[in-house]
Parts: sequence; structure tokens; C-alpha cells
Amino acid sequence: MQQFFVEDINKIEFTKDQKHQINRVLRMQAHEPFRVVDTHGNGFICEFEDNDLTAIKKIESIQFHLKSYRLKVIMSLIRNDRLEWMIQKAAETGVDEIVLYQADHGVVRDYGNKTERKLERFNKIALEASEQSYRQFPLKVTKIITKKELQQEMSDINLVADVLKGEHLVESIQPNQEIVIIIGPEGGFSEDERILFKDLDIHRVSLGPSILRAETAPIVAASFVSLLDKEFVDA
Amino acid sequence: MQQFFVEDINKIEFTKDQKHQINRVLRMQAHEPFRVVDTHGNGFICEFEDNDLTAIKKIESIQFHLKSYRLKVIMSLIRNDRLEWMIQKAAETGVDEIVLYQADHGVVRDYGNKTERKLERFNKIALEASEQSYRQFPLKVTKIITKKELQQEMSDINLVADVLKGEHLVESIQPNQEIVIIIGPEGGFSEDERILFKDLDIHRVSLGPSILRAETAPIVAASFVSLLDKEFVDA
Repeated sequence: MQQFFVEDINKIEFTKDQKHQINRVLRMQAHEPFRVVDTHGNGFICEFEDNDLTAIKKIESIQFHLKSYRLKVIMSLIRNDRLEWMIQKAAETGVDEIVLYQADHGVVRDYGNKTERKLERFNKIALEASEQSYRQFPLKVTKIITKKELQQEMSDINLVADVLKGEHLVESIQPNQEIVIIIGPEGGFSEDERILFKDLDIHRVSLGPSILRAETAPIVAASFVSLLDKEFVDA
Repeated sequence: MQQFFVEDINKIEFTKDQKHQINRVLRMQAHEPFRVVDTHGNGFICEFEDNDLTAIKKIESIQFHLKSYRLKVIMSLIRNDRLEWMIQKAAETGVDEIVLYQADHGVVRDYGNKTERKLERFNKIALEASEQSYRQFPLKVTKIITKKELQQEMSDINLVADVLKGEHLVESIQPNQEIVIIIGPEGGFSEDERILFKDLDIHRVSLGPSILRAETAPIVAASFVSLLDKEFVDA
């Protein structure tokens, strides 16, 4: 069943892209159920009342699993195909927000005047993957920051993932908190960055004994954080 | 530092591909360190003694983290690009063996007379990713099986991952065992398959509240299984 995010569940309006998907891609029919979720987290299973696909009927409200945490990943800029893949998987594994970071040793440093278009594209990927994962709220890729702006992104639990060093991530998380995890670029962090992390009291954690590529680390981290909700699973 | 897998550490012989990588891709120099690991799990940091890159000197032996489990993923055949991506990530996250499965609802059913070439390519991806992750033993993609052959693949702990149903995977794993996890295709399992899993006493487990694509599930599952080794991490 397809899910669509809309502004307001009380006045369902599809975007041009969504209309195209409904009419041309999915070729939807009357009485075929679909999910609609709005920006406030309200969702309904709906159907079109006739084959013109104009009048929408709400069938039943969707009961969402309420997450017990908020997860923000501060992700160093990496090569585009791998970053886009990571964004899709981050939506699947329950990341709430991605902030892109211009790491000292990053191969990709910034997008210049393409920044806005890039963020648009990343959010399109995030939105589609969020729909496919039946999320209550879509993953957002909110901004690109420099080292100076890192401090403003800190929250309740602030972690930096590093290889084979320090306590395991699962030992450092707690429900009902915003968890921030910083992920390095392929080249690792600079000495400057390491000093800054210490100054900002960002706790260094391990993702286990494996050596992970930059784009794999957030997905493994998000999986571990999702264990905070393992008791929510229907037995 | 680059890692290379070879047959025997006592008689290091590089393949044609490895020689190409050493000479043309990495453009290695004398006294530049690299890792060599053999099929018995013995590894050394080595260097070439001169710029002809012929004589190899062993510098020091590599101390591997010894995994406390063996993880075999039985993966339903899915679209090629997603399957290849999954194989790379499975190598990073500690999967030991992938057996490909012709699921009833799989879009990809088999590779016909291309099977051997396909397995070769998958193992090339697995080997490269295993080198990059500094693994002691490479991930192997061993075979493609039908429903009839599933029974032969069973081991100590046999699990099938399903959405939102049953006990969480982390509750069902134990160290010093071979863990087998079956992952369904995009279309899910058939009734026939579900009956077979029950007959074979394969325990249904959840990967958490998120809805995952077929290629994401093994990576999330492997991350959870890696928690068996979280105490091995250097503090």
C-alpha cells in the first residue's frame, strides 16, 4: 500500500508529483486503499470514491508506533551516490534528521551555489523512502554546517562514532532524549576536530569490531539506537 | 592501509588483479606498509623491500578480533544493484556467508546459465569489501538454492526476519553458535514458505519497528548480531 505525506489530513491536497504517481505510475483505481499522513503525524487509510480519483474517503485512522527517541545524524559530506544511498537507508532505519557537515578531511567540501538544489534532491529521496517505510514523520535533511556551527547542533546525548575505541554505542543511549551522532568522512577526523569534540563534551563511541565505510556507519548506528524501542514490537 | 587476501602467508603470491592494483591503482612504493591475510586467517603487516615491488618483508603479525559467532544470511534474490550493494555492506557488518534463495515471490527467480558468472562477480565484491573492512576471513557468497534445499542450510539458531512480528532478533541470538537468518524478497514470503519455516522450526524474529527494504534487512540484522561481540571492543 502506498503512503503519501500531505500538509493537512483534513484537507488532503496532493502535489503535482504525487498526482503523477497516482495516475501514471501506480495507475490507482477507486476503492484501492492508500495511506495519507500529514505534517502533524495524523494518518488515515483512504480510498478514492470513483475512478476520476477526485473524492477521497477516509477508511480508518493509522495507529503509529510512537518512537521513544529523536535521532539526529551529523554526517560528513561524502561522495554523492553513497550519500544518497545513506539518506534512503537512514529513512528506513528511523533517523529523524540529517545535518550535513563539511569535515576537515572530507573529499566533498561543499556544494557552492548548488546547495539549495542539493538539499531539495536529498529531501526528495528522504521523503520517498519515508513514505515507503510507513513513517509517521519524514526524515529531513535540514542544512549543511561548518565546524564553527557544530556547537549549535548539540542536544541531550552527543556522540561521535569512531572505530574500535571507547564504549559501545548501545551503552550510551537512553529513551526520551534527542541523540546526536557525528559520523566522520572516509579520511577520518582531523586533530582540530578531535579537540573540538572534547571541548564540546561529545562522547566517543564504538559501533563494534567491524570497520565500516562512512555511509554504512549511520545505518549501523541507527539500528543500534532503534533498540530503545525493541519492547514496542508486537509479540 | 590496503589489505590483500592470499592463499598462503608463507608464500605470498598476488593475483593478476592484485598486481594491477599494487602497480597501477595504488602505485605502491618500497617500505609502504600493507596488510596480507591468508585463507587460514593468518595476517601480517608487510612492505616491499625495493621499488621493483618483488621482495616482500613481513613487519609484524596482525592480531585479529576473534568473532564469537558465525552468521549465515539466506537472502532472497532481489534486483541486481540492490543485491550487490547488500553484499558489500554485509561484508562490512560481519556476515560470514550469503546463500542466495529463489523465493516464491521474488522478482528475480534465477540467473539461468549466468549463475556461475554471477557468483564470481558477487564474490569479487565480497572480497574487495572484506579487504577494505580488514576482515580476517572474506565473506563468501556460496550458492543459489531452491525451497527444497533450505532444510540443508539450517544450523544452531535458525531465524526468519519479519516485520513487526515476534520477539526482537537480539533476544534470539547467542555466542558460539552459527546463526542463520532468512531474509524475504520485496513481495514477502508465500504461504507455502511460511508453512515450511514452521515445519523446519525456524523462529520468526523482528528487526524492530521500522519497515525495511529487502536489501537493508540483512545489514540491520548483522548489526544486531554483532552486539554479541560488543564487549570485545577496546575501551
